[in-house]
Amino acid sequence: MKTEPYKGVRDFYPPDMAIQNYLFGVMKKTAESFGYLEYNSSILEPSELYRGKTSEEIVNEQTYTFTDRGGRDVTLRPEMTPTVTRMIAGKRREFALPLRWYSIPNVFRYERPQRGRLREHWQLNCDVFGVAGLEAETEIISLAYRLMKNFGAADVDFEIRANSRKIIAAGLVPKDFSEEQIRDFTRKLDRGDPTPADIHFEPDEEIKKLLAALKENGINNIRFDQTLARGFDYYTGIVFEVFDTAPENNRALFGGGRYDNLLEIFDEEKIPAVGFGMGDVTIRDFLETHKLLPTYQSTTDIYLCNAGVNFNKLEKIAQEIRDNGLRVAIDLSDKKVGVQIKIAVRQQIPYILCVGEEELKNGQFKLKKLANGEEKTLTLQEINAQNLF
Amino acid sequence: MKTEPYKGVRDFYPPDMAIQNYLFGVMKKTAESFGYLEYNSSILEPSELYRGKTSEEIVNEQTYTFTDRGGRDVTLRPEMTPTVTRMIAGKRREFALPLRWYSIPNVFRYERPQRGRLREHWQLNCDVFGVAGLEAETEIISLAYRLMKNFGAADVDFEIRANSRKIIAAGLVPKDFSEEQIRDFTRKLDRGDPTPADIHFEPDEEIKKLLAALKENGINNIRFDQTLARGFDYYTGIVFEVFDTAPENNRALFGGGRYDNLLEIFDEEKIPAVGFGMGDVTIRDFLETHKLLPTYQSTTDIYLCNAGVNFNKLEKIAQEIRDNGLRVAIDLSDKKVGVQIKIAVRQQIPYILCVGEEELKNGQFKLKKLANGEEKTLTLQEINAQNLF
Repeated sequence: MKTEPYKGVRDFYPPDMAIQNYLFGVMKKTAESFGYLEYNSSILEPSELYRGKTSEEIVNEQTYTFTDRGGRDVTLRPEMTPTVTRMIAGKRREFALPLRWYSIPNVFRYERPQRGRLREHWQLNCDVFGVAGLEAETEIISLAYRLMKNFGAADVDFEIRANSRKIIAAGLVPKDFSEEQIRDFTRKLDRGDPTPADIHFEPDEEIKKLLAALKENGINNIRFDQTLARGFDYYTGIVFEVFDTAPENNRALFGGGRYDNLLEIFDEEKIPAVGFGMGDVTIRDFLETHKLLPTYQSTTDIYLCNAGVNFNKLEKIAQEIRDNGLRVAIDLSDKKVGVQIKIAVRQQIPYILCVGEEELKNGQFKLKKLANGEEKTLTLQEINAQNLF
Repeated sequence: MKTEPYKGVRDFYPPDMAIQNYLFGVMKKTAESFGYLEYNSSILEPSELYRGKTSEEIVNEQTYTFTDRGGRDVTLRPEMTPTVTRMIAGKRREFALPLRWYSIPNVFRYERPQRGRLREHWQLNCDVFGVAGLEAETEIISLAYRLMKNFGAADVDFEIRANSRKIIAAGLVPKDFSEEQIRDFTRKLDRGDPTPADIHFEPDEEIKKLLAALKENGINNIRFDQTLARGFDYYTGIVFEVFDTAPENNRALFGGGRYDNLLEIFDEEKIPAVGFGMGDVTIRDFLETHKLLPTYQSTTDIYLCNAGVNFNKLEKIAQEIRDNGLRVAIDLSDKKVGVQIKIAVRQQIPYILCVGEEELKNGQFKLKKLANGEEKTLTLQEINAQNLF
């Protein structure tokens, strides 16, 4: 049997998982710093949720959809917006709007895997519900900007581009276009067709006001971009994307916009909504390109080497140290102490504590710091009282 | 369109998500305190991974399996052990054994939903690879015990029961039973059939030694249980389960055991392995039954009330406070200040800061603590310097 994962998805070995945890940690911290509350749901959704409002291309050609043993059509969620809208619609009478919510779900697309596009990826989703005014766009774009800064990006590393579906609808599109024809046109714009050179939109008052407000608060790497459309049909107003400015990776990193009508599919009154989604694969590529990923740090503090004593005695000592908040791995290799130390070094565990019969008898233990080779002889009480980091 | 989630799965609204985050936090902290490293993978696995080694009942009747658009058979993982074994097999030449790994994946079973059994649940998986001796079982059961303690359980609230597949195989089962017949017998035992009264096993030396070691380290709520078998076919030695002792919830909470042969399905040499899985639904039921779930705490520190100023000015102040590590939500309701305060109270946000033109002019802000109604007038610098918690 093969040991590869399913096509187009990833295994996260501990060093990869450490990067994922770093990405998710910055996402959580930033979203919560703006007062967003975390929610989640299952990856399984009734297929009907995606019919009509998500891009047709995605529903028809790019979802994992199957019939369960009970005859229900099920889809692995390709994005989170329909789900969060369903959740809001389901309890809207219990909620006092406005709401700020975030989630970091995994989402699925049946695509040919390529750089930056996998069949499963994780995606930070941040949304504001219940705000019709530009405060929502101002905050959501400020949050997107702050995320980039919290990942260590400088203003010159990225650019925010904004446009409005209203400008597109009011501008070039013939007055007698049906809603479907406008959608078709927007999709073509999103794919870069018709070519930007052929069309000329002017920023309207709303988008001018938004750009001015953001610049007033120090966000200067933002500009109007008439060619921006975003792939989803459900956007109704301002849309924006964050671009990498590096020549070798010049592409959209993530984006979002206003979608005021999505609750209608649940026969509910409209709720104004603004949000964005940031994928883990693209942001990781960005951080690698700009050398912003942190170096690996072990989640274990102390490696307990076994100099010939019973495992059970080590477990007792380890638990005493753990009870004081440190993370302790006991050697299980049954190798010589020199080899045990090499294992700790290879695993990048910052401290080593060697325990033999002698140490057990006199209660004095040698604690070695791997970074500089420094060694201290301490009692267990002293180890627990140490501020090791 | 309906607003309910797909049958047998859950939506996690922010208060539910806070409980999930609490559960996952205790799981992560405890596993890492023992030196376990986190890994993960996709929920999508090639179906062949489950043929042969997982319980036949689960593969044939209880998995989500479908054919993708490229003709591949795909299964939503029903458990994590085959996945982690696949990952170990795939890179075994790069690894220095032993390894300690953990993960908190979501897993899927196509079952009739009932109390404690849903179609999707999350499950902490902890495994040790590469240790043939009892040190592995000692540590894994110590970790399971410590998890319960870290969730606030007292020793009387739960009991650990242990048995060994070796005792079952060597004891009652006729000598001429094939491997398949032994598996059948173990499955019947797991379902409580034949009745325990009819059979009598004695603990062997290995299990006596294990129980003695654990008791020596203060784990006294453990005993030999001849009726214990565990549902999976792949176990080869010691198996254990943690039981709730509450009369109204007397059931197995979680368990695990030794599975030394699983790497064989990848045509690899055996690697001894011991592990367990703890599900979020059962542990949450347990914590509710024993009143051990913590009360909800907001992940927002300060609610910024708007006493009639431009949103953009509030955003500037909020960001200054955020930059100092506090989490700040700005009012977006456009209601009177009295109503805004009610929103903050309803959302259980511990501090309120009111900002009007007056406060902007003189730089003095009133910070109110909701718990006791205490109010202080402070400058922004003073707020940032405060230790609010």
